[in-house]
Amino acid sequence: MVGAMLKVGLLLGACARSWKSVRMASCGVARRHPLANKVALVTASTDGIGFAIARRLAQDGAHVVVSSRKQQNVDQAVATLQGEGLSVTGTMCHVGKAEDRERLVATAVKLHGGVDILISNAAVNPFFGNLIDVTEEVWDKILDINVKATALLTKAVVPEMAKRGGGSIVIVSSVAAYSPFPNLGAYNVSKTALLGLTKNLAIELAQWNVRVNCLAPGLIKTSFSRVLWENQEREENIKAGMLIKRLGKPEDCAGIVSFLCSEDANYITGETVVVAGGVLSHL
Amino acid sequence: MVGAMLKVGLLLGACARSWKSVRMASCGVARRHPLANKVALVTASTDGIGFAIARRLAQDGAHVVVSSRKQQNVDQAVATLQGEGLSVTGTMCHVGKAEDRERLVATAVKLHGGVDILISNAAVNPFFGNLIDVTEEVWDKILDINVKATALLTKAVVPEMAKRGGGSIVIVSSVAAYSPFPNLGAYNVSKTALLGLTKNLAIELAQWNVRVNCLAPGLIKTSFSRVLWENQEREENIKAGMLIKRLGKPEDCAGIVSFLCSEDANYITGETVVVAGGVLSHL
Amino acid sequence: MVGAMLKVGLLLGACARSWKSVRMASCGVARRHPLANKVALVTASTDGIGFAIARRLAQDGAHVVVSSRKQQNVDQAVATLQGEGLSVTGTMCHVGKAEDRERLVATAVKLHGGVDILISNAAVNPFFGNLIDVTEEVWDKILDINVKATALLTKAVVPEMAKRGGGSIVIVSSVAAYSPFPNLGAYNVSKTALLGLTKNLAIELAQWNVRVNCLAPGLIKTSFSRVLWENQEREENIKAGMLIKRLGKPEDCAGIVSFLCSEDANYITGETVVVAGGVLSHL
Amino acid sequence: MVGAMLKVGLLLGACARSWKSVRMASCGVARRHPLANKVALVTASTDGIGFAIARRLAQDGAHVVVSSRKQQNVDQAVATLQGEGLSVTGTMCHVGKAEDRERLVATAVKLHGGVDILISNAAVNPFFGNLIDVTEEVWDKILDINVKATALLTKAVVPEMAKRGGGSIVIVSSVAAYSPFPNLGAYNVSKTALLGLTKNLAIELAQWNVRVNCLAPGLIKTSFSRVLWENQEREENIKAGMLIKRLGKPEDCAGIVSFLCSEDANYITGETVVVAGGVLSHL
Repeated sequence: MVGAMLKVGLLLGACARSWKSVRMASCGVARRHPLANKVALVTASTDGIGFAIARRLAQDGAHVVVSSRKQQNVDQAVATLQGEGLSVTGTMCHVGKAEDRERLVATAVKLHGGVDILISNAAVNPFFGNLIDVTEEVWDKILDINVKATALLTKAVVPEMAKRGGGSIVIVSSVAAYSPFPNLGAYNVSKTALLGLTKNLAIELAQWNVRVNCLAPGLIKTSFSRVLWENQEREENIKAGMLIKRLGKPEDCAGIVSFLCSEDANYITGETVVVAGGVLSHL
Repeated sequence: MVGAMLKVGLLLGACARSWKSVRMASCGVARRHPLANKVALVTASTDGIGFAIARRLAQDGAHVVVSSRKQQNVDQAVATLQGEGLSVTGTMCHVGKAEDRERLVATAVKLHGGVDILISNAAVNPFFGNLIDVTEEVWDKILDINVKATALLTKAVVPEMAKRGGGSIVIVSSVAAYSPFPNLGAYNVSKTALLGLTKNLAIELAQWNVRVNCLAPGLIKTSFSRVLWENQEREENIKAGMLIKRLGKPEDCAGIVSFLCSEDANYITGETVVVAGGVLSHL
Repeated sequence: MVGAMLKVGLLLGACARSWKSVRMASCGVARRHPLANKVALVTASTDGIGFAIARRLAQDGAHVVVSSRKQQNVDQAVATLQGEGLSVTGTMCHVGKAEDRERLVATAVKLHGGVDILISNAAVNPFFGNLIDVTEEVWDKILDINVKATALLTKAVVPEMAKRGGGSIVIVSSVAAYSPFPNLGAYNVSKTALLGLTKNLAIELAQWNVRVNCLAPGLIKTSFSRVLWENQEREENIKAGMLIKRLGKPEDCAGIVSFLCSEDANYITGETVVVAGGVLSHL
Repeated sequence: MVGAMLKVGLLLGACARSWKSVRMASCGVARRHPLANKVALVTASTDGIGFAIARRLAQDGAHVVVSSRKQQNVDQAVATLQGEGLSVTGTMCHVGKAEDRERLVATAVKLHGGVDILISNAAVNPFFGNLIDVTEEVWDKILDINVKATALLTKAVVPEMAKRGGGSIVIVSSVAAYSPFPNLGAYNVSKTALLGLTKNLAIELAQWNVRVNCLAPGLIKTSFSRVLWENQEREENIKAGMLIKRLGKPEDCAGIVSFLCSEDANYITGETVVVAGGVLSHL
């Protein structure tokens, strides 16, 4: 971390010397490292979209705490990102468990003195199946992890954000919230619920200067979404509704999340941004 | 019931004699009793919106099975509606319990030979509170009753609809799905989830010729919504966003539900109709 | 007209005699002829969706004034509907011309003493073409007829509605407002504009007790929409997005319009109802 | 321009030397000057939101051509931005005139060899008034400038983007597209139309690798929106619907536009991002 800061210092020095005529904002740390000194928690971030977001937040200057249910995955992600010179630590966290949520927040507070950013990424496998066949067990798992855990983790984090005078939360939903993925009923419903959760949290948390926004990725090629693209026909069906004729990459989702957490997004709250290659979503 | 049918027969006779030049559709039972011979289940229907819907479906010709958690309330509602000459029976049903859901469906099958219509009305009290303060217990109660029970009741009903060659489901959400009611976080989120449930069930059930639509009432003056209107200031805040400057009445919600279940709505599925006096909802 | 009223009287008599135990509302003219004595203007109503709406409003008790750009078509539609015993007259009206709009309103006032209902149906042919190729001439024609004429006709009608203490307007948009039809760029945009026009008019006209709602039909099989379904491939593409696997019929759109104009819809304003067989539209 | 490029080169050099361990993406020109070497047209850009966007695109590395209806305003904006060391030129352009639109595109091609980015900002004064009072003259002016001119300017620009293998368009709508501003009927409708224009252009232009997105600002404090905030009561009404209790600043809108034009947004097309301090818009 010290190393990274040092390098920023060098860059800033170079910057100041070479481009004096440009407004500081376009040159300084704000633009190049828009999240400098921010502390960010990212759940389900050892792989796929969550991992890409964690990396990007760190590249943009944040101290990032990654997490997922398996310590081994956490260790590997941390090693990879630290190997890239990024300020990243990690802790095991099952977001469905109160003690894990508390430990995640406590870890960030202990290491970095507080929390500024929370990225709540869904952690549960999108069980393949229709609503008409859904069991209570599967329903509960999906809704609890995708929706309730997001609400409860927010509840755990907000006091820390309030102490720092504000913060930014991004909830990862899906374009399936608008335009259901085939055969993923409970998953789709949980993603629609997150649109409402975003609006409600934005309203409630405005008083503490906490902004809450939402990302709705399309079909992103990850191990997580394999059920959607490993079947050639299903992939073709979904691609038929896309304007940009490729599956998304995790990195396609990372820039907008970093943006939404930055000062540039200070007047944006309660909104959902769809990153889905042009799949129909909403007007 | 026999009496009601008899009366319909008399009316039809009078109709046929007096207005021969008009197309049958505008005169016959379809227009005047658009739900004639249909069997309808309505949950949470012994009071408020559910009761108004049950009465209207019966007035429009359906055999209606009302239900709610308390036998006493069921008895009273049945007595009232039978006293109006309507074909209404009832059974106690806690929609959160599998055996109750099954008994509800079985009652309709036993009495009327099947089910054509399901109106899934929320049964849980809208606990007053913010998401930031929500307990797991309250969250679970609201989401389980409002969303999961709707999914599971649908699952129980659809085989009966399929046997009859189709059916119609209306899910009662709320304008709060779009435009959150203050201090009712978990309730609001559950109502947004129902928008997604509607879309997903419409997709899944089309193969059995079952249409699924959604009603999103605004602030309707019922005992259920008392938390919203008993506080003068809160009521004024909500009214400020209305174009029609009064609280809704349960009857304001009944006509559209009957319409959505009728032949006239045969090409409508997956849609939500807002009945909220002009509160902002969606484009 | 006298004849129709007489018949209603006979029916009412029969009704009163045979079904005394049922609440009047379910028996009386309100339910069976929900638009009794209402005066309705319907534009572009000598064919297709407009014609089906005009017929239905008349069947539901309204005095209807049909109109379109060609006197011959008006004469034929009036003859057909009068032949069905309905209270229908007509007048030639090019909604893009101020004098025609005024004459349309004046006709209704002269014949029936006022106006209660306006159905603004688009009259312009949906020129087949992309926005990237659109000429100013085509753009102007489509936007002027579909959007501006609706606004100006409303302006001409509202004073008459205000005199009667209120009224109801239904604007015919299209599901293409949400989910664009291929190769119909300017048409699609004009239909999205109508969603906004509906919201804005609902807000402005609430003070005169005029409700404004919108119908968004899907692909309805009419001569008007021939460009969409005469090409087999295009029709298949659109059907692929439908849950109900058939093109709509004009009658599929008529019931909801009559409903929206009835007392049953008294608490509904500013809303759009999609009748599109389950094509994706909005949450 | 050469100067700016030189400075970029120096920065890159410094960067390469000092921060080798970090992935190039986080260090290189892409992240710090995400629009380096891009050529951007911005209409209505000598003041307010358009000016803030033009400045930001230039700060982020683009060569920007500003424009508005008055040469004097163009000269002043260019002088200001060049004085900040930015690569900005300008030309007078009334977007409602074909020759002006063509000259605008030709200017960019002549100066910079092509066009990569178009920001279509509305240029017409938001005439204060209701739809019920609107004249054809005012309606035409607002719809023609805000909507038709955007379509026609796009038509003029796309061939140039196609030559370069792709491009990015951002259309400036308004939160009033969803949640109408009081007493600005025609303006509001034109902004809703732009949501549809965005969707349609995104579909049509995908084949040339041109992405089309939309910005929906809330109440931004500019001379343009003075009618909305100079009246204390109207300002308070609008603020009451905001979660972030201040009017927006033009700069609040600039970052997201630059983002949408950058590589980071490569998988985003057809979407509208609301920047309105939490005013209700859409789910």
